[in-house]
Amino acid sequence: MRLRNKPWAKDKLSDNPQYVVHEPEQYRGRWNELFKQNQHLHIEIGTGKGRFITEMAKANPEINYIGIELQESVIVSALDRVIEAEVNNCKLMNVNAAELGKYFARGDVDRVYLNFSDPWPKTRHEKRRLTYKSFLSTYEEILVPNGEIHFKTDNQGLFEYSLTSFSAYGLLLKYVSLDLHHSDFEGNIMTEYEEKFSSRGNRIYRAEVQYRTK
Amino acid sequence: MRLRNKPWAKDKLSDNPQYVVHEPEQYRGRWNELFKQNQHLHIEIGTGKGRFITEMAKANPEINYIGIELQESVIVSALDRVIEAEVNNCKLMNVNAAELGKYFARGDVDRVYLNFSDPWPKTRHEKRRLTYKSFLSTYEEILVPNGEIHFKTDNQGLFEYSLTSFSAYGLLLKYVSLDLHHSDFEGNIMTEYEEKFSSRGNRIYRAEVQYRTK
Ligand SMILES: C[S@@+](CC[C@H](N)C(=O)[O-])C[C@H]1O[C@@H](n2cnc3c(N)ncnc32)[C@H](O)[C@@H]1O
Ligand SMILES: C[S@@+](CC[C@H](N)C(=O)[O-])C[C@H]1O[C@@H](n2cnc3c(N)ncnc32)[C@H](O)[C@@H]1O
Repeated sequence: MRLRNKPWAKDKLSDNPQYVVHEPEQYRGRWNELFKQNQHLHIEIGTGKGRFITEMAKANPEINYIGIELQESVIVSALDRVIEAEVNNCKLMNVNAAELGKYFARGDVDRVYLNFSDPWPKTRHEKRRLTYKSFLSTYEEILVPNGEIHFKTDNQGLFEYSLTSFSAYGLLLKYVSLDLHHSDFEGNIMTEYEEKFSSRGNRIYRAEVQYRTK
Repeated sequence: MRLRNKPWAKDKLSDNPQYVVHEPEQYRGRWNELFKQNQHLHIEIGTGKGRFITEMAKANPEINYIGIELQESVIVSALDRVIEAEVNNCKLMNVNAAELGKYFARGDVDRVYLNFSDPWPKTRHEKRRLTYKSFLSTYEEILVPNGEIHFKTDNQGLFEYSLTSFSAYGLLLKYVSLDLHHSDFEGNIMTEYEEKFSSRGNRIYRAEVQYRTK
């Protein structure tokens, strides 16, 4: 994600508490108090400009969504979308995925979405990949038993790596598509990156994996 | 594999006991007596015309190989190759993979190769796929602990299916390539199907999976 300096971003985020979660620690173990409806919570990690999470929230009013994004200057674009959509089942959080355990208790989250995560192709950067085992362990700490990760990318190397990382962690591979846009998967909602890279002819890979009860 | 009627095939197979294993039950638990060298045994299931198994035997004299093929009229072509190569670490067996437990005891086999297995795309034929759970169980019965399956195919549907089948069975996915011919995998030996389909531009998929000790 190319970053532009947006000095006004911080103010814009604080000015919209209806959509941006501030001091998320306070909701640990009781996220349902924040949302209008007490219902399942799905989070997306690395939400970027927010197309996916906003469209998912519109399409699935029976689910609560939180988009998690590290970069202030990027999450403000997601905020514009959420404001425009006027959805009450979608919030944004400007935090680092590595620290999710501070904000969510075990069982708070029903599903994790990872879309077009940064590939970090160099082996020495493996630990930064959002499908590295330390992240899989962080997701396990906040998910319900048998919680799922739904993962999409056009990056072949990251997808290959992630399949082996999921397997080494003991996750169950429930579904895999090696060409999502020519598969029978229904109701796919594209992300910004997905629109861009599929229009260039890249294949989109997708996997659904599930934590096994131990 | 298109089958031609070859009435002479049966005779040709019996005339070459040096390369074709007859009454394989007798070697159960003592395959090393059949080979010149007491060394690891790798088997290929659905050997077809035998390019892979013969070239592997030539390239790896420190390993014994058996090519297993159901069709008499196909395995005779493999026999021609093995005879020509004059390798003493490669045999052929004209049996059904579903019955491998009759011929091999637990630990007889160190590795199973599956190359371009018939895809059986219809769901109602799932049980015929060589990566269906009953076959994974048959391979487990004859392999050493932590034995491996090395699988190649150009068939996207079969590869997707097999990844989920391996995972559901509890196998560890050690390595996966979604484009073998543009990967850093070294020493690849092509099968007849691989030559044909890669020359048409099809991607070749490859996975290495391992049984976990329970
Ligand atoms: C390549 S972009 C993809 C954006 C969006 N998911 C899409 O598909 O269009 C990856 C995003 O993940 C964010 N990101 C990377 N590491 C993160 C982390 N540890 N926590 C939260 N967000 C992260 C980046 O800031 C970036 O916006
Ligand atoms: C599509 S061909 C591939 C041949 C070769 N492996 C290649 O890559 O060129 C599949 C082969 O598997 C054989 N086969 C299928 N089911 C089998 C079984 N249950 N036991 C042994 N061989 C089998 C078929 O007869 C056929 O020759």
